[in-house]
Amino acid sequence: VILRDPVHGLVSFEAPPYTLVPALLATREVQRLRRIRQLGLAALVYPGAEHSRFSHAIGAAHVMMRLIQRLEQVHHELPPEQRVTGERARELVAAALLHDVGHGPLSHLFEDALPNAPCHEEWTRRILMSSNTEVHQVLVRCDPGLPERVCELIAGRHSLPYLAGTVSGLIDVDRCDYLLRDAHFTGVTYGQFDLAWLLRSLRLGVAEGQNAPALAIDGVKGLPAIESFVLARLFMFQQVYFHKAARASEWHVSSILARLRTLLENGDSVTPLPPAMRALVLNADASLEDYLRLDDGILWHCFDAWTHARDPILSDLCRRLQSRKLFKTLELYGAEPTEERWAELLERARTLAARAGMDPVHYVGLDEPRDVPFDSGKDRLRVLLPDRSRHKSYAPEDVSFVLGRLRGQDLVRRRLVYPRELRDSLLCD
Amino acid sequence: VILRDPVHGLVSFEAPPYTLVPALLATREVQRLRRIRQLGLAALVYPGAEHSRFSHAIGAAHVMMRLIQRLEQVHHELPPEQRVTGERARELVAAALLHDVGHGPLSHLFEDALPNAPCHEEWTRRILMSSNTEVHQVLVRCDPGLPERVCELIAGRHSLPYLAGTVSGLIDVDRCDYLLRDAHFTGVTYGQFDLAWLLRSLRLGVAEGQNAPALAIDGVKGLPAIESFVLARLFMFQQVYFHKAARASEWHVSSILARLRTLLENGDSVTPLPPAMRALVLNADASLEDYLRLDDGILWHCFDAWTHARDPILSDLCRRLQSRKLFKTLELYGAEPTEERWAELLERARTLAARAGMDPVHYVGLDEPRDVPFDSGKDRLRVLLPDRSRHKSYAPEDVSFVLGRLRGQDLVRRRLVYPRELRDSLLCD
Amino acid sequence: VILRDPVHGLVSFEAPPYTLVPALLATREVQRLRRIRQLGLAALVYPGAEHSRFSHAIGAAHVMMRLIQRLEQVHHELPPEQRVTGERARELVAAALLHDVGHGPLSHLFEDALPNAPCHEEWTRRILMSSNTEVHQVLVRCDPGLPERVCELIAGRHSLPYLAGTVSGLIDVDRCDYLLRDAHFTGVTYGQFDLAWLLRSLRLGVAEGQNAPALAIDGVKGLPAIESFVLARLFMFQQVYFHKAARASEWHVSSILARLRTLLENGDSVTPLPPAMRALVLNADASLEDYLRLDDGILWHCFDAWTHARDPILSDLCRRLQSRKLFKTLELYGAEPTEERWAELLERARTLAARAGMDPVHYVGLDEPRDVPFDSGKDRLRVLLPDRSRHKSYAPEDVSFVLGRLRGQDLVRRRLVYPRELRDSLLCD
Amino acid sequence: VILRDPVHGLVSFEAPPYTLVPALLATREVQRLRRIRQLGLAALVYPGAEHSRFSHAIGAAHVMMRLIQRLEQVHHELPPEQRVTGERARELVAAALLHDVGHGPLSHLFEDALPNAPCHEEWTRRILMSSNTEVHQVLVRCDPGLPERVCELIAGRHSLPYLAGTVSGLIDVDRCDYLLRDAHFTGVTYGQFDLAWLLRSLRLGVAEGQNAPALAIDGVKGLPAIESFVLARLFMFQQVYFHKAARASEWHVSSILARLRTLLENGDSVTPLPPAMRALVLNADASLEDYLRLDDGILWHCFDAWTHARDPILSDLCRRLQSRKLFKTLELYGAEPTEERWAELLERARTLAARAGMDPVHYVGLDEPRDVPFDSGKDRLRVLLPDRSRHKSYAPEDVSFVLGRLRGQDLVRRRLVYPRELRDSLLCD
Repeated sequence: VILRDPVHGLVSFEAPPYTLVPALLATREVQRLRRIRQLGLAALVYPGAEHSRFSHAIGAAHVMMRLIQRLEQVHHELPPEQRVTGERARELVAAALLHDVGHGPLSHLFEDALPNAPCHEEWTRRILMSSNTEVHQVLVRCDPGLPERVCELIAGRHSLPYLAGTVSGLIDVDRCDYLLRDAHFTGVTYGQFDLAWLLRSLRLGVAEGQNAPALAIDGVKGLPAIESFVLARLFMFQQVYFHKAARASEWHVSSILARLRTLLENGDSVTPLPPAMRALVLNADASLEDYLRLDDGILWHCFDAWTHARDPILSDLCRRLQSRKLFKTLELYGAEPTEERWAELLERARTLAARAGMDPVHYVGLDEPRDVPFDSGKDRLRVLLPDRSRHKSYAPEDVSFVLGRLRGQDLVRRRLVYPRELRDSLLCD
Repeated sequence: VILRDPVHGLVSFEAPPYTLVPALLATREVQRLRRIRQLGLAALVYPGAEHSRFSHAIGAAHVMMRLIQRLEQVHHELPPEQRVTGERARELVAAALLHDVGHGPLSHLFEDALPNAPCHEEWTRRILMSSNTEVHQVLVRCDPGLPERVCELIAGRHSLPYLAGTVSGLIDVDRCDYLLRDAHFTGVTYGQFDLAWLLRSLRLGVAEGQNAPALAIDGVKGLPAIESFVLARLFMFQQVYFHKAARASEWHVSSILARLRTLLENGDSVTPLPPAMRALVLNADASLEDYLRLDDGILWHCFDAWTHARDPILSDLCRRLQSRKLFKTLELYGAEPTEERWAELLERARTLAARAGMDPVHYVGLDEPRDVPFDSGKDRLRVLLPDRSRHKSYAPEDVSFVLGRLRGQDLVRRRLVYPRELRDSLLCD
Repeated sequence: VILRDPVHGLVSFEAPPYTLVPALLATREVQRLRRIRQLGLAALVYPGAEHSRFSHAIGAAHVMMRLIQRLEQVHHELPPEQRVTGERARELVAAALLHDVGHGPLSHLFEDALPNAPCHEEWTRRILMSSNTEVHQVLVRCDPGLPERVCELIAGRHSLPYLAGTVSGLIDVDRCDYLLRDAHFTGVTYGQFDLAWLLRSLRLGVAEGQNAPALAIDGVKGLPAIESFVLARLFMFQQVYFHKAARASEWHVSSILARLRTLLENGDSVTPLPPAMRALVLNADASLEDYLRLDDGILWHCFDAWTHARDPILSDLCRRLQSRKLFKTLELYGAEPTEERWAELLERARTLAARAGMDPVHYVGLDEPRDVPFDSGKDRLRVLLPDRSRHKSYAPEDVSFVLGRLRGQDLVRRRLVYPRELRDSLLCD
Repeated sequence: VILRDPVHGLVSFEAPPYTLVPALLATREVQRLRRIRQLGLAALVYPGAEHSRFSHAIGAAHVMMRLIQRLEQVHHELPPEQRVTGERARELVAAALLHDVGHGPLSHLFEDALPNAPCHEEWTRRILMSSNTEVHQVLVRCDPGLPERVCELIAGRHSLPYLAGTVSGLIDVDRCDYLLRDAHFTGVTYGQFDLAWLLRSLRLGVAEGQNAPALAIDGVKGLPAIESFVLARLFMFQQVYFHKAARASEWHVSSILARLRTLLENGDSVTPLPPAMRALVLNADASLEDYLRLDDGILWHCFDAWTHARDPILSDLCRRLQSRKLFKTLELYGAEPTEERWAELLERARTLAARAGMDPVHYVGLDEPRDVPFDSGKDRLRVLLPDRSRHKSYAPEDVSFVLGRLRGQDLVRRRLVYPRELRDSLLCD
């Protein structure tokens, strides 16, 4: 298969071991990703952000293929048993393609709103391991042990840790693709970095005090690529993933699902209701078959129908979503406000909501997304720099001006979420 | 409203008369366009092509705003009553935003498959004129005559023909946006042209033998912009809109809908079936309210459910679509083949299909998309070029090397569509 | 060597046979190309077009490397003796890098103004074959026969014609690089085409009635790439290479050099005057050593000094250039004007010039650049398209809508060049 | 004038007060900038970086025009006497165009190598104030006080400090253009930021404790634009301006000029030698007329001729430059090395050089470029953020995650510069 991708240009999977990719793409479970948007509700804010998890899956597999080609250029320094074999390449590219196959509607949003239900990683595992799925059958046809090995890789486990790091690590193929893809589709130009230069700088070093090979970067060529990768990710978090209106919309949908749960637990009837949603809300689990029937379209169909629900809270919340009467947010700037200040603010907003006849819990809340843009634990990427006539390995933060200053710093964007009717009374003291 | 568009960058509608745009964007009917993909099934071939008609509507309105700003720079040569007023600008931008609001699921595909039902232009008119729609209410709140005037513009009628030409003409805002947008999302780089330079070259000339002002281009600056616009459109037709697999998929869906019609006409029951689809198939019309409930998600939901339909043709066609077992195409190259050659080929393929137990009519067909990349009738864009110390007006084909050679030429891509099981027997004589 | 090119991104020549490239780049003759602008005087019109022949040489070598890598993917169908060997790859990349090393100041302009002097191809040959040049020494150090073989390739001769076609042919590496490079630096976006897709579509077919392998294109994938390549070239000719002000400036410089010749032939002294220029003008040849001392800076230095020349024509022409008092052009549009019309016009302008005290020959002329955007002779690129279960080979014009309509058509832009003082009297009848 | 710029696209200066721009562009002094490369010797490392100060001057004027258009949208909150008038706009755009007109050959390099000679700012002042220059004459023709007022602006002085800040400040038009331009021509993609969004976010606030208006940014929209601007600049410093080979080349040229000074001070003759260079080296000054004859071409012409100089140091240094036998650098990574360590290293390298027969001072040195990527003094850009129903003004570092962590941090890249022959003995202890 050879195709055109707006992010990576010409993409092809034509020779073994990559011919597994077209077979996996044709499965029902992977095709389902076409109906799940990569960025959940962000299209409400960024109209271009309508891309699905399907094109991201292709992109991640493509980046993995290029990364493997680079590893093959530099793995000759390793003992043969530690190198990238055809079999390992096949596992890696399958893991890249399938790493998110278990996502539910609106991606992360769905699992966040149902905290007791299985997470998307668990659904991914079930899809790979269930003998009923087409994905499983394609994998098993290659090799009976493949589903298990791909699951392990997706979980970040491999006897060669440097290979696990390409699926899940500081600069893994998932991040490499989603940063570029989300930037292309939102139009947020800050989310760019130089993938070609980053891949070209990859080396296999040996981590301090260990003898297993580790992913490393040739620092003279590659340090700016790593720095701009970390900063691109930081910008995308600030601008897109933590965008106030996108976060408020997600809070909005969570509130709808929370109300749904209360109603179902009270024995109220809500229709239509896909079996998987009923099961997930009431039993914190569902059958795989039912789960795979869920997608963004189904969820929007429900929200649309629920505008006529009997419960006034559920119907009002759905109507607000349908007519884009989204929730507002309030942020506090400058010197870090105390917990008391936030508690007071929340309390005041809830009192105002109650006075206005709105349920305080479903209409007012605190949202507090959090990320560490650059952390540096063990097993992390090393940077190789010339030291006399050899190379010496450093932690990125010890040789990078900007990473040294960002290391371990916490990015938090706390906001009060509240209905727009309260805006005036809340802001004007 | 100020937002980020991946195609046009910073887009804003902040001052009158453009403040009508955010009000229209918030309506239920325009929001529905978020759930209708611009390119129908092309995402099956170009994974990035998942953009909706919603972002195209914003883009068309943005281009219209820029075009009006250009017209305002050059309309001083006209008598005051022929210039762009604030009121006319409001109508134009509303027409640009709403020109496609009547599209059904999968855009053009839906209306092509139901040839007797109202076309999308008719649905657009109904949406604008029905007092029940939010779009109508927003327009009427501005001015009771606005819905009617916007409808006229969309239909290409205005007392100042040069204004109608911006909504529907050789280089109208619809084309300006969709070419750039489809290129960005498919990754087909050929579909680019230089919008800034094209707009900057716009002038208001007077057409030969008339005294009404006409859209014209300053030829010294703008001729290459027009040429590359026409060629970009030609490339997009060749590469995307007429792509063999995209066309085969559309033929596939048409075949499903044709089968649906036969079943319903026979009194067979098919479930689920949205009321609008039943009505459109059986009565060639539907209520506006039902029609507006249709979107891509609903259609895919039906196709998914119909894989279990009792009718073996319907269920098989839906299963093929779901598992991407798409139809194949056969094209004949070189010297123009005769009609007889095509008739023979079709006959042979249908015979082979019947022998293989497949219904010939629903499984084999001819597809023949057709376009004239550059035509030149009356009322067309004029090109102004210096002639001694004045300007003289020419038809584009008389002063452009490439347009002179393309004028009136017909682009046709005829193909046989057939099921992949027949490939070997069909090709190997 | 690994470097960053604004056109191709990451460019590297790190493994044999490409390590010859850095050695050639370091030679004095190739470094001299840094001081010769690729587009001559076009920077007077396109301020960004200040790139040199040096970066174009690197770009051409890079495209050749990618093209060879593609040929290596598909040459297995050929008998071993017809395949690309390491030795052939080395010759090809050297030919790509060195194909223009003989250019004089302001590129084509210099040789056009001195029609009896050796052309740049001849200087290239001398540089490669002279034992005194560093280029020659680097080549000979690899293989004593290399200079000769590289010369042959640059001249379009090789025992395997498909290899000669990569250096000089419809889609050779010279064109591939200069179109993209000139587009990037001028900002003329029309000059883009999809290099990755074009290279990927390359195949080795067999030309009709021959048994030597020929460059071919997989038509299903690659036809649009070829079409857009031809159109990109057409646009660059129309917009940049034939730009009226750029052409008028080139005519201006030719006029200066023509006047220089007259003066020298009359025995007048002009200073400063680099030895190579004196020799070229008076003897139609120069020593290689002197020739290699010429560059753009020297020429501008002369023009600057000649503003004080005794000859009033020479000094006036140089003053006009220095203060950008450039010549104007007049073009005739619409129906093809007759030769008489042009002769009359030239006559009238010369009369007006003489009346205004200007030398008619050095101040008025006709400029008539000419190009055939798409021709189709023998030995040309073939297009492979499926025919039943095999492929059949076609001429591009027989299967391409747009190339079929452009084939053999002549692009001519004739213009009168005249001094701006005559504008009013010339235009107002 | 309307032209195509590869960085900004369509650029035009067509209506007053911007019609001053074409008049200034046509002057001899501004045209001279075509022959001075923006990045000095960086093209030795980045082959695309061949752009001149001329296109940067146009770019800076273009950005100023857009910035003024934005200020005109928001200056209505100021009292009329503080707003941007046509006259002020004319001064601003002239200052933007002319801010670097005094640069000598190879830009900064030339003045760095001649520390006692007038700096480029002083030459700019002389060009503007001398009644002999065409620039002066063009300015005076508009208004006799214009040269003086433009000089003041370039020096950062204006009765309205917010206007001075647009010529010289954190986000001035000089930086806005050179970051984007240098990124485009080097191909270093990290140097991008979103100019449209940055300009759109501009507001006129009032600085804390003052009553003069100050440039401010609407923080909700514009903070990421400022952050990415600062980071783009940091990346360009790290990647391009402080690139080891570019810096080593600049050290190389400084060493040539230092040697030239010694020879001239000793009364030795060096030819050729432009009068301005002799005067600058011996008298630390030169006549304006002589100075304006200098450009990159002249300097390279000298270096080329000096390869035959009698002095062995001068001729050897020039030969090394001509044949790209550039100097090497050595950097120390990890924990900050002590001053003693550097002193030792320098001493050792000089000893090795002396032993190898090379003059230690002209062949070995320390290079220590330094920049503060983000400082925050008084009079700086303010950030406006919502505070209840009003806006409150903050320092960028108090509301930006990344700027808060970079503020006041010093970027230093110290390196030993030494001849490549010493590499082995220096590195292998």
